[in-house]
Amino acid sequence: MSGPCCAIDVHTHVVPAHLPDERPEFAGLPWPSIKHTEACHAQVIISGKNYRAITDACWDVLRRTADMPGMDVGMQVLSPMPELLSYWLPAGPASLLARHVNETIAEMVGAAPDRFHGLSMVPLQDMDAAQRELEHAVRQLGLKGVEIATNVNGVALGHPSLEPFFAAAEALGAAIFVHPLRPAGMDRLVGPANLEQVVAFPCETALAIASVITGGLMKRHPSLRIGFSHGGGAFGQVLPRMQHAWSAMAPIKAAMDEPRSIARKLFYDTLVYDETALRFLIDSYGISQLMVGSDYPFSIMDRKPARRAGNLGLSEPDLDSILFNNARRFLALT
Amino acid sequence: MSGPCCAIDVHTHVVPAHLPDERPEFAGLPWPSIKHTEACHAQVIISGKNYRAITDACWDVLRRTADMPGMDVGMQVLSPMPELLSYWLPAGPASLLARHVNETIAEMVGAAPDRFHGLSMVPLQDMDAAQRELEHAVRQLGLKGVEIATNVNGVALGHPSLEPFFAAAEALGAAIFVHPLRPAGMDRLVGPANLEQVVAFPCETALAIASVITGGLMKRHPSLRIGFSHGGGAFGQVLPRMQHAWSAMAPIKAAMDEPRSIARKLFYDTLVYDETALRFLIDSYGISQLMVGSDYPFSIMDRKPARRAGNLGLSEPDLDSILFNNARRFLALT
Repeated sequence: MSGPCCAIDVHTHVVPAHLPDERPEFAGLPWPSIKHTEACHAQVIISGKNYRAITDACWDVLRRTADMPGMDVGMQVLSPMPELLSYWLPAGPASLLARHVNETIAEMVGAAPDRFHGLSMVPLQDMDAAQRELEHAVRQLGLKGVEIATNVNGVALGHPSLEPFFAAAEALGAAIFVHPLRPAGMDRLVGPANLEQVVAFPCETALAIASVITGGLMKRHPSLRIGFSHGGGAFGQVLPRMQHAWSAMAPIKAAMDEPRSIARKLFYDTLVYDETALRFLIDSYGISQLMVGSDYPFSIMDRKPARRAGNLGLSEPDLDSILFNNARRFLALT
Repeated sequence: MSGPCCAIDVHTHVVPAHLPDERPEFAGLPWPSIKHTEACHAQVIISGKNYRAITDACWDVLRRTADMPGMDVGMQVLSPMPELLSYWLPAGPASLLARHVNETIAEMVGAAPDRFHGLSMVPLQDMDAAQRELEHAVRQLGLKGVEIATNVNGVALGHPSLEPFFAAAEALGAAIFVHPLRPAGMDRLVGPANLEQVVAFPCETALAIASVITGGLMKRHPSLRIGFSHGGGAFGQVLPRMQHAWSAMAPIKAAMDEPRSIARKLFYDTLVYDETALRFLIDSYGISQLMVGSDYPFSIMDRKPARRAGNLGLSEPDLDSILFNNARRFLALT
């Protein structure tokens, strides 16, 4: 399997080779910058500290397209490295950063439009600015939607304060890809570094999906197409408890639509590293809601993101759904 | 199915009909009390507020044994209502409360020793007091172990500060049943009340299990028998990501034993309200690690806690493992 006929990988990240220079008025803000250390390698620097070592796979179109056949991926959906979302910056600098990242992603798509689609970032800390950037990204830059975090400075996705953004995304037909960031439960981690991503991310994503359901978002905006990374994290095991509570407890039932039916309208990538876990996603959410995701090019990535779906003994139409047809629906490709 | 031959329900709660009177020196503490409102009904009052309406099923042995046949349960394991664990009280009052609750549970067991086993509570906010109460509960009162929360005032189970308790539990051969309480992620909930238990509990339990693994607890105390409520919450979907990170990232691998092999040494109840979710537990943890749990007598309880295991088409030995044999191993029954 190789070439554009194969999997659409909806979960790949971009860091631009260069970011706008820090301006004097940004002094003291956690403004990100890229320090190129040697050929093909760089450091993302935030607040004077090394945030992450990256390679040219983060920005180089040729490097990415060269890597895709070995992953059985025909097309990548490009989204920003989540830390770049920068909801903690003031709206002005955040909009500047978003515009630059979005233009970079649009240029990458333009360089190989048969191999890439792009998702934007928007400053969700400011609803007006977020709507402005989203409209620009979709209408002017041709991006297919937007990557957002599971929370905005601690506010969960389903919170009413984010309502204007979701209304705009629905009106624009923008796909929304949700990635964990600054997760809840950090004070519960014990042991080595990196547990934020390994342990806290799946729970954070579960809390975000739950808030979408309990907050009634899909009832207000039924046309939204929202996809969750890492298979929706740990939400698959929260859902049956929500479903039971909804059936058994009148105040829960009165407050929301049936959790299971809403969960089966959301999309999820298959990045769960395990066939049993992938089968559980299919059983929980339905074959029609799953899309290949790899986390390329970061160290936790799945180097064969389509392999597990291929190993499940699915029918060809079901496998094609997971490999590319669901992603086409999520991205509204024609 | 009825009678002592049938399921052992490891997840049932007790509230004593009466609690020790608040003493003058407890003024200002969240000391719990029971207000009997009408026949068979009471309110648990904490800090002057109604915490929960309860019935005589919380304390009445005859009521409980009468309810068991209809649930296909032959034996209940009694543990305190989690809020009673009271880790937020000073050690002195907390020890007084623990002693009273433990004696109440021991009396209930004594009234129908073929229908009940008991788990104690201990003041985990004070390691010396916790060890003292645990030893008393196991050696003097004959309880089979202890119910603990997923965190102690925000400190996760796997944190080294709790090491003396786990060493004592291992030395005493005490079973440890873990229940979520004061969960992480409360600021992420959007919508109706009760979401603490419905949404935040499963994620909190996942974080607790992860901390047991990442903190190396089972390596230091391989004989510990630890059981997690609600099927281990959402941990089953965190585990494959931990397993992948352990395989792929050297610092994670260096810091802990293989996550999957540790997870398969822990016990989990089957309280997941869904056959697909129960099958996922079996596939994730192994048939030998699952035990029936109902959350009796609270409103979220599963009124037929053994039914789903019976519907899975398991072999008779496998079904017997889930219905009672694993619980016997967990409780070290002879």
